[in-house]
Parts: sequence; structure tokens; C-alpha cells
Amino acid sequence: MNEVERACQAALEAIDLRRHLGRESWADVLDKIATALDAQRDEVLAVSSEETALTVEELSPEFARMTGTLRMFAALVREGSWVRAAVNKHRENPAESIGPNHDVRSMLLPLGPVAVFGASNFPLAYGVCGGDTASALAAGCPVVVKEHPAHPRTGRLIFEIACKGIAKSEIQRFTQPSSVLNYVRNENPQDLSVATDLVQQLEIRAVGFTGSRRGGMALVQLANEREDYPVPVFAEMGSANPAYVTLGAAARRPVEIADQLADSILARFGQQCTKPGLIFVRDIDSSGPLAQRLAERFRAAQGRDMLAPWIADAYRRRVQECIDTRSAEVVARGGDRPGPRGATPMLLRTYWDDWFQHETLQEEVFGPAAILVGCGQAEEENGFFGATFQGHLACSWFAEPNESALVQRALRSHKEMFPGPGRIAFNSVPTGVRVAHAMVHGGPFPSTNRPDTTAVGPFAIERWCRPVCFQNCPNELLPPELQDGNPLNIWRYVDGLLSRE
Amino acid sequence: MNEVERACQAALEAIDLRRHLGRESWADVLDKIATALDAQRDEVLAVSSEETALTVEELSPEFARMTGTLRMFAALVREGSWVRAAVNKHRENPAESIGPNHDVRSMLLPLGPVAVFGASNFPLAYGVCGGDTASALAAGCPVVVKEHPAHPRTGRLIFEIACKGIAKSEIQRFTQPSSVLNYVRNENPQDLSVATDLVQQLEIRAVGFTGSRRGGMALVQLANEREDYPVPVFAEMGSANPAYVTLGAAARRPVEIADQLADSILARFGQQCTKPGLIFVRDIDSSGPLAQRLAERFRAAQGRDMLAPWIADAYRRRVQECIDTRSAEVVARGGDRPGPRGATPMLLRTYWDDWFQHETLQEEVFGPAAILVGCGQAEEENGFFGATFQGHLACSWFAEPNESALVQRALRSHKEMFPGPGRIAFNSVPTGVRVAHAMVHGGPFPSTNRPDTTAVGPFAIERWCRPVCFQNCPNELLPPELQDGNPLNIWRYVDGLLSRE
Repeated sequence: MNEVERACQAALEAIDLRRHLGRESWADVLDKIATALDAQRDEVLAVSSEETALTVEELSPEFARMTGTLRMFAALVREGSWVRAAVNKHRENPAESIGPNHDVRSMLLPLGPVAVFGASNFPLAYGVCGGDTASALAAGCPVVVKEHPAHPRTGRLIFEIACKGIAKSEIQRFTQPSSVLNYVRNENPQDLSVATDLVQQLEIRAVGFTGSRRGGMALVQLANEREDYPVPVFAEMGSANPAYVTLGAAARRPVEIADQLADSILARFGQQCTKPGLIFVRDIDSSGPLAQRLAERFRAAQGRDMLAPWIADAYRRRVQECIDTRSAEVVARGGDRPGPRGATPMLLRTYWDDWFQHETLQEEVFGPAAILVGCGQAEEENGFFGATFQGHLACSWFAEPNESALVQRALRSHKEMFPGPGRIAFNSVPTGVRVAHAMVHGGPFPSTNRPDTTAVGPFAIERWCRPVCFQNCPNELLPPELQDGNPLNIWRYVDGLLSRE
Repeated sequence: MNEVERACQAALEAIDLRRHLGRESWADVLDKIATALDAQRDEVLAVSSEETALTVEELSPEFARMTGTLRMFAALVREGSWVRAAVNKHRENPAESIGPNHDVRSMLLPLGPVAVFGASNFPLAYGVCGGDTASALAAGCPVVVKEHPAHPRTGRLIFEIACKGIAKSEIQRFTQPSSVLNYVRNENPQDLSVATDLVQQLEIRAVGFTGSRRGGMALVQLANEREDYPVPVFAEMGSANPAYVTLGAAARRPVEIADQLADSILARFGQQCTKPGLIFVRDIDSSGPLAQRLAERFRAAQGRDMLAPWIADAYRRRVQECIDTRSAEVVARGGDRPGPRGATPMLLRTYWDDWFQHETLQEEVFGPAAILVGCGQAEEENGFFGATFQGHLACSWFAEPNESALVQRALRSHKEMFPGPGRIAFNSVPTGVRVAHAMVHGGPFPSTNRPDTTAVGPFAIERWCRPVCFQNCPNELLPPELQDGNPLNIWRYVDGLLSRE
């Protein structure tokens, strides 16, 4: 048995553990992991900063998000209503029932062991103990994490700390920590065998992935073609995140908006999946002051190291592809940074008609670059201004209060539907994702392959579950969530109405 | 433009209509369709009975389920909470927020036009105005239905009636009925071009399918390989639906259980996706009286016509495949029915060790057949008795009250998880699906490709939606579901808590 097989075998030990432990002890596992991480915070930040070339200042909020998310899911498990329990009892008047008058009760149950492929750019919040792991564990699924070759030391350290935390929970009475959370090494970025092997293990019942479209879609295909049966892959693959600046907003707040955008684009050196990579302005000449300020900010930006040499290579290649269309020109470039991981901030410019023709200008450039797209009055009036031909994680609207009709028209005619983004930010940038019920971190293809889900917030737990219905089941055989008298005091759909009865 | 292209173009007209109409008028569209169908009930029943060889008595409850489901979704739209609205306001204390302190609000929005491929075996409940159409329309998605070659006259009649109903709703003020619901002909079962064409239309954003695994998975592949981007397919593909009869239950209630099973297997001549096709008994000799009664019932059953000649061919082929394993023998056969659609009820028998070896004995036989599987004490004690190697829509347990520990063990160790069924029926049969929140009509592959969803009940509406988040959005630009003050008075997650505030 190789490392992947051993990890998946171990995971089988824990598939039923949430039930045995009960919700309080299960929630405590997540809390104990967060506590253990907090105790070694400085060490985690130092190691991850060294490996990723992100600063400790950049990584600190991400650390808080990682532990905050673990604790949020602990609270969700403790409260218990997340299972979407539904109870339909025998009707006294059978004529009111559509179909036979059975007693039916349903709730979400965990799918089984989950494989997690973390992100290069968020070694903490999308890493070994990031959102996918936290939500899958909360659901009751054992997790096997594949090492990310861009930060193996960070991954191993977090795994080691998490195991210490788990060992302090009640789990130690039943099994070893590695049944609940395991880790398989993959130091060499050229070696795809670990990923391939992991997705095809029979024990693995779902996959979480954050990374490139190529990588994500390769996993989707492998998972669809498994010998036993297809398993779901939730792949978050990044996006270009268009920002739309109306004529009014560009005239009234050119410097303010340019600064908001520049801060957002250049934060973490452009290596965020929600970076606004396309900036649509109604009239590039009228928007002169905005464009000028943006160019100044890019020229003032320093060159830096990117997350990994292969990511810097890809960045330079994508920028060059855009320039090679001959439809986009460089309007500002920042400082250079020599070496294999070094890169230069780049601001490009094109016009709607050209942008429209070139897919290469429509897709994400991962790194410190953005493309200004000049639009005309016609695009604005037809609502095309708001149109996106590809799905995105997020988009931004910068508009004045008196331009609501224009925004409304654009939203109604296109954005919410075809394919549109998962999140629409108004007079604010999409970077910086609040972890809450109302957050949607997801969106139509190619930003993800599953726009019906979110990777952030409490609802992320539903990805690792499926509903199961119990028909005419004796009360003592039902999970407590579905029993008469609602012993867990959770919200349930009782005969169609939300209730805690 | 061919018929498919015209239908999809027309659907584009209606993608925003739910918003314009508001929830009351939108709900009324569904009610008006139900009313129009009720007005021509006898005609629909007569035509569908002629085409399908199902009796008017068999089709009558299905008619009630079709109109009941339309009205259930109308009520859901009227009430409005189904959109899963979530509101997270700015926190007064930003430290309580994980990530930036934005105002974020989200709800489910429709995906866009949906293609519906109805079932051969339920011309009404899974037909032109069946569950997929009703739930997609309720969500706000225009629907294009592909004709089923097994009952084109029924399909055309229902479509014509539905259009009359829609024309009486407020929709006529905005567009023609065919924008909301359309129908493309496909009379020749050999002609797959209509299906292929429909799934690949750019306008189509999701697909509902009920039918064979081969057909369903072909659509899944087409939808995944679309030129623009992959769209979701919700394919319900049938299953073998194992029934487990314990030693105690077989000893105490042999005739009662045999009759329950025989009624379920032979209803609608075995042509139900929830038919219990595998009957596991602990000890086939101790279960003698049960097996005997079941055999009697099969011998007394008449031969009948099946839904279509190609379905009768497939039935005969599948039964022969099972016999050809030489591991299953015929224990009872019912009456013969000559002609291309005629078929004979068949009861087969095998033993656990043989069944375990032959995939062909594990898979669905669509039609009036069932396989008795004899198990030993070891299977029961190891919980293997309850194991299913494939996913199923449903399974049944027949057990005595003093056998709870055995059932519990089997459920815990396998059924809920690996891969298991979508519904577990206790001392009752899986045929007869109650339409309610707690129903799960779905299950792991190969019974469906999306075990996270249900095709029956209010939650079926969520298949046609994705969540969209509005960040820092001016109140007047928000959909009413998300506005301050909750003008629609719906249940929402407000700062993490369910509330109607």
C-alpha cells in the first residue's frame, strides 16, 4: 500500500464517527484544531511567508480567517440546524397528501471521505485546515489533503499541529487523528501521480479543489471516469472579475475609484482569485483622470516574487499572449524583479470591439495585471456594458446614485443570468471575502464547475452531503435530528413549515 | 432555424419574466396550467392510456400527482421563502466579522432556460407538465420539453392544454405562452438528433432527464462537452431498489410481506423506477412461506403490453441475461402476452455468493420481474445483508421490533453512506412517492448522477437555481427578497439566524 492508499484506508475508520461522538464532541474537534493553530501562530506565519513570498502582514488576516472558519463550523455543528431536517407526518386527512400518506423524514448525511486539493495562493485559508477541510470535517466527512508543491513545509506544519489538536479531542478514545484528517506528500510539481491516484481511490466520495482551470477540469474528468462510479468535484478555478465604472462615477470619483481598484489588484501581488482583472470604463477619454491615476499606481508598484517559479512563468506568458493579440497595449508597468519567481505589474488597455473578439483578453491573467476596456455609449445603453461572456466569481459596479436605472437594466438583462458572477459588489472591490451565510464564493463556469455551491460560509458544508429520507421509520431507529419531539431543538421543516417544535 | 432553435430562442424572451410579474402572478401561471389540465382530465387519461397500455385506474393517481405538484409549486412561489435568502449586515463591532465587514445578501436565482426529457413510464407526473417542468417553471426558468416517442399524442395534448392555461395568466400581457413552455417533436425513437441538438443549444442552461442510464449518461457527456460551457444535467436513471426481509419478519408475516412486495412489483406492470427488484431474505428455506406466496402471486399475474415495443425487447433481454449467468433460476412465471409489446412476469432466485459475483444480477431489470436473493447468517451479522454495491433510489427493510439492533447496525455500517439509497422505507414498499419536503427521490449513481438533489418535493426547485450575492448594494437595487424590512415577509437567515424580521 502506498501513502495515498494508506491514508484512504485510515479515513474509512472515521466515516461513522460524528454519529458516535454526538454534535458537541464533534464540534469540539474543530475548536481544538483552531486552538492548536493559534498556539503556533507565529511559526505558521513565518514558514508560510518564507515559502510563498507573501508578507506576514498579508498572511495575518488569512490566518484569522482560517481559525475563524474552523470555529464558525464548530458553532454550526453545535447548533445543528444545518442538516435541513424535514418531517412530514401521516396526515390525519389523507386527501391532503400528494401521493401515499407515509411518514417521511429527511436530513443531510455525509458523503464519506473527501480529498482536498488546496490553493497555491492561500496557503492557510485554502490550505490543509482551510475552508474545504473545515466544512467537510464539520459535515462528518474524513479528509485527506494532498500537499501543495508550492508550500510543502507550511502544509506539513499545519497538518502536524492539527493532529495535536485532534488528539486532545474525544476522538482519541476511538481512533487515531489521521483517520479524521490525513495528508499525502507531493513535493514535486511535475508529479501528478499523487493527485490522480487520490481521486481514483474507491474510499474517496467527493473532491474539493482550488487552483487552475486546467488542473480543476482534469480532476473533474478523472472523477467522472472512475471505475466504480463518478464522484462530485467542487473546483474553484479563478476568474477575471470585471469591474464596471460608469461615466458618472468616473467623473465624480476618479482618484478614489482608481485607488480602490489599484489596492485590490496589487494586494498579495495580484495573486487572488477575486482580483478585478478587467476594468470597463464608459469612455476611456472621459475617464482620463481615472485611467491616469491607475497608471500612476501601477508605475509606482514594485516588482516582487510570485508564489512559485511556474506561476511567474505562467503570468509572463499570459501577459505576452494579451499583447500578442495586437489589440491591447501596455499603458503602465511597475518595477522589475529579477530571478525565476520575479514579476512586473502591468496595466494594459483595449477597446470593447477588440476585447469582444479575443478570448485571450477575456480570461483571467493570474498575477499583478489588469486590462482597462474602453466602452462606448451603445454598449452602455444596450446593457452590454454589464454583459459577461464567461462566468465569474465576482464583479464590481461603480456607479452614482442617479445611475440606478442603468445598473438595474444591466443587471436585469444579463448579469444575474447569463452566465454572470456569483457575487455583485457595489462601489466596492471583490477582493476580501466575508465569511457569512450570505456570501457566495462561487460562480458559473469557468470560475467554478458548480455554480450552485459556495466555497465560503456556512452553506459550504452542504457540498459534502446528500439528503436521505426515512419512510415509516420507528422513532428509535431515526437519527436524533428527525425524532419526535425534536430532542436537538433544531429548525426543521415540519409538514412544510419551518419550526423548532 | 429548426424547431429546436426556434423553441430555445423563444425561451430567451421569458428569462426575466418572473421578476416582472412578481410572485403572485407567477404562481398563478402554475395554477392556471393545473386548472386547464383538470378541465380536460378525461381526455388526457384516455389518450395516455391508449398510448402507454397503462389503465385509466393506474393513470388516475398519476394525474392527481401532476396537478397536485403544479399547485404545490404555486404555493411555494406564493410563500416565497424557498429562495434561501440570507442577509448579513455591517457589524457594529467589525471584530465580530470574519473577513471585511461588508453588507452581503444572497438568494437563489434561476439558471435560465431548462430542457426537460420526460419519462416513458410516467407520461403525466414526469411528462410535459411533470415534476421537472413544474419545479423549473416555479424557479423562473422557461422550459423546453422534448417529446417522448413512447407517447407523442399525450405530450402534444398536454402541451396544448398547458398553453391554454398560460394564455389565461398575466403572461399574455408580455409574451406568448411558448416563451414560458415549449415543446419539440421527436416521434421516431431512433432519431436522437433532437435530444443532441437541444442539449447543445447555447440558451439551455440546465437539463432534467428521467429514463435509462445509457440515455442519461449520454446527455451528461454532451452537456459536459458543450462548446460554450458545461451545464448541469439532473438525470434520474432508475435502480434495483433492494428489499431486505429479516428472519423474524419472514417468519411472522410471510404472506403479508409477500403481498406487499408483489403488489409493488406488479403495479403498472413493473414499470416503475422505485420497483423493489431485489428481495433479500435471510435464509431462503426458512423463508419458504414468503417465497412460496410470492411465486403464487407471480404465477397468477397476467401477461400485459409494456409501454413500447423497444421497452419490451429490453425487458426480455435483461431477464435472459440474468438467466444466462446460470446463477439465477426461474421460480415462477406469469401469463404470456403475444405481440411486440407483450411481456411475462418473472420471479428469479439466486444466492448471495452468486449474486455478489454477477453485476448483471445487481442491476435493474425494468419490467415485471424480481430476483429473490438468499443470504446466510454471516451476511446478516456482518451487516452485509444491508450492503448495496450500487446506489439506489430507495430500499426497504422488513423487520420485527425486536430486530432493531440488527437494522441499526446495517444502517450505520453501510447503507446511509456507501453508496446506499436516497430513501429507506421501513415495513413499506418504495413504490408510491409522497410529494413533500421530506421526500428524497434521488440517490447515488447509477440511480441518479446527482445524489445531492431530489426530483420530487419542494426542494426539487433548487436544481434550477444558483445563489447570487449582492455586496453593499443600494436597497432600491436589491430584489425585494433581500431588501431592508423584509417586504415579502419570508424566512431569511439574518446575521446567521432564521427569522422573518
